[in-house]
Amino acid sequence: MEKSKYVKYNVLTGDRPTGKLHLGHYAGSLSERLRLQEIDECILYVMIADVQALTDYSDRPEYVVSSIREVMSDYLSVGLDPKKIVFFIQSQVTELAELTVYFLNLVTVSRLERNPTVKAEIQQKGFSESIPAGFLCYPVSQAADITAFQAEYVPVGADQAPLIEQTNEIVRTFNRLYKTNCLKEAKPIFGTVSRLMGIDGKSKASKSLKNAVFLSDSAEEIRRKVFAMYTDPNHLHISNKGAIEGNVVFQYLDAFHQDKEEVEELKAKYRHGGLGDTTVKEILNTTLQDFLTPIRERRIEIFSDLSLIESVLYNGTQEARRVANVTIRNVRSAIGIDGYFNQYKITWDLNILYVKYYCGLVFLEIFLNFINHLINDDSGVATELLLVIAIYYYVRFCGYSYNVGT
Amino acid sequence: MEKSKYVKYNVLTGDRPTGKLHLGHYAGSLSERLRLQEIDECILYVMIADVQALTDYSDRPEYVVSSIREVMSDYLSVGLDPKKIVFFIQSQVTELAELTVYFLNLVTVSRLERNPTVKAEIQQKGFSESIPAGFLCYPVSQAADITAFQAEYVPVGADQAPLIEQTNEIVRTFNRLYKTNCLKEAKPIFGTVSRLMGIDGKSKASKSLKNAVFLSDSAEEIRRKVFAMYTDPNHLHISNKGAIEGNVVFQYLDAFHQDKEEVEELKAKYRHGGLGDTTVKEILNTTLQDFLTPIRERRIEIFSDLSLIESVLYNGTQEARRVANVTIRNVRSAIGIDGYFNQYKITWDLNILYVKYYCGLVFLEIFLNFINHLINDDSGVATELLLVIAIYYYVRFCGYSYNVGT
Repeated sequence: MEKSKYVKYNVLTGDRPTGKLHLGHYAGSLSERLRLQEIDECILYVMIADVQALTDYSDRPEYVVSSIREVMSDYLSVGLDPKKIVFFIQSQVTELAELTVYFLNLVTVSRLERNPTVKAEIQQKGFSESIPAGFLCYPVSQAADITAFQAEYVPVGADQAPLIEQTNEIVRTFNRLYKTNCLKEAKPIFGTVSRLMGIDGKSKASKSLKNAVFLSDSAEEIRRKVFAMYTDPNHLHISNKGAIEGNVVFQYLDAFHQDKEEVEELKAKYRHGGLGDTTVKEILNTTLQDFLTPIRERRIEIFSDLSLIESVLYNGTQEARRVANVTIRNVRSAIGIDGYFNQYKITWDLNILYVKYYCGLVFLEIFLNFINHLINDDSGVATELLLVIAIYYYVRFCGYSYNVGT
Repeated sequence: MEKSKYVKYNVLTGDRPTGKLHLGHYAGSLSERLRLQEIDECILYVMIADVQALTDYSDRPEYVVSSIREVMSDYLSVGLDPKKIVFFIQSQVTELAELTVYFLNLVTVSRLERNPTVKAEIQQKGFSESIPAGFLCYPVSQAADITAFQAEYVPVGADQAPLIEQTNEIVRTFNRLYKTNCLKEAKPIFGTVSRLMGIDGKSKASKSLKNAVFLSDSAEEIRRKVFAMYTDPNHLHISNKGAIEGNVVFQYLDAFHQDKEEVEELKAKYRHGGLGDTTVKEILNTTLQDFLTPIRERRIEIFSDLSLIESVLYNGTQEARRVANVTIRNVRSAIGIDGYFNQYKITWDLNILYVKYYCGLVFLEIFLNFINHLINDDSGVATELLLVIAIYYYVRFCGYSYNVGT
């Protein structure tokens, strides 16, 4: 992926807020985002997918909501930069729901049921006969997310490629049906690092399997997990030859040790015999402690600064809405359902607002001139002051009541 | 349905904008709405379901859009009163899409597939294997419509009762899951008049079967259709005994003739023998001409007055959004995804707006006082005038740029 590919292009990525992030997330996606945020031509949108999380956690919304703060703390503590990335909350960009509803008409039920990613997840989650409609439709919701931000690239795992294909099918159907090119097809970016194993060596690192090292883990927890890591079960004595394949300790060293040469030397020694598991684990422990200590310390500070997290999300969400709004306007216009009230929207609604302000201010002026006469304030200073105060409260009141209505 | 049942309760009804309305609509639903609009306790919402129409007409959006004007003209010409009814366009109340997305998590795919109304329509429309996801999900979208307006009653045909049941299931699931009672269950109102037959006597009056008398039909078209109506095929001579059952002419007389006694006399005579089809058809023709002529004349006037139709829909849609917005706030609050930016929404956003106005106005005052001195206008009249003009444009500019951002 060269820089030039990103000329003026948007990239969308994100996470479901379902708990703290771990080293698997770092190796699989956070490191990629750290790289992407430094590319000037790349506008990176990071979505906290609370609506998508609610498809699985509809019975535990409070867990989803509290996870937003955890995930944002993880993001900021590893160095994702709100000045370079647009962070936003999915549920607050209601344009995405609208797009989803339009897109649902463009894809058949059997096409959704054939989606390999959905199929695999249905099996994994054990839904069998009781698949929530929201789950079946989530590729459509994802297509809405991707197209709303005109994302040209979407970093995904290899198992998620069918979701991008589904998005592009919807894009092509929409563009053909409505004779437009307002929606863009997206290309997947496949990560260079395959997803990290869990410490048990059986499956990928995952919160639910309790086999992950979290970014927020304490020094003791890290040490405990490192020393519980699966290595070569046949490597009983230091002098035995050891296997690197499937050896979790070496996978983590590969991912997090700074000195690649040293890792290669360690691997050679381990293969040859003469390097004990304890020694390698001590090295990995030092590596991870060095890596995670500053992250954990920053994280504690960031997590306690709720107003920082809120302002990052608020500003990002405002920007995300602005962009998604442009898309939804184009989409509505392509479908032809945008022009219902053009005339009224411009003349009627705004005019009422102007007239309200205008009359109010004229009235204020007259009233204050009257007071001016009463108190015989020739200099007008007292009136000036009163005017300013009155206008402040007047605008506050008008502005508020107008906002409630829209 | 007694008046007392309606104390403070909302009723939601509506049509898909897919062509002009006909006498079947009048007998089946418009007459009921004329009755409901006179009940003071009943707040009647009439939805023009363009999004729902797009589930079937995704390839002909322009037909859906142009039908909105046709349907509104039909509504107003039969006497539905915008002062008593909230008319709105579904696509413009985006809260409905948001609710739909939340509700999709609360119902399983197999439950939707078992819905008898959906099943019947899938068969009728010949979707077989290629059911659009939007079609399968439309009971969920309908649940969103009903609950968004806290509708207590929904007038439906007997074949649509399962849709109300589906809505109530979603309401119960939502309220139980999120420990709330913010959504209300709805009850169906079954029409007293069964739906009118088409002129062919084979099936219900329907635009697509070309067997309906439209509210906008010309005098000639009405006469032609009346004389093409299916009667008793065994009633060959005036003296023959005739059957009333399945006789379309008598069904229309029942529905539209003012004098019920006269209709009964005609029926008796027809059964007994001695009353010709032509005579009865002449009577029906006169009845329908009397009924439809004033409607058609009003309709021509209304149809040409686009700004009337737009303003009715605009005002209704604003009111509908206000009501749906209350529901969506309650729903978000119940799920727990409402409070993300409380602090910022109140302090940051509005304060920026106030400060903007405030500084601008103070600056204006100072600037105009300066001009006042320059032109030596002691009376202050010129300044006053300038101030008012300047504030008008200032507010116009600020108000506009603020609105664009939200």
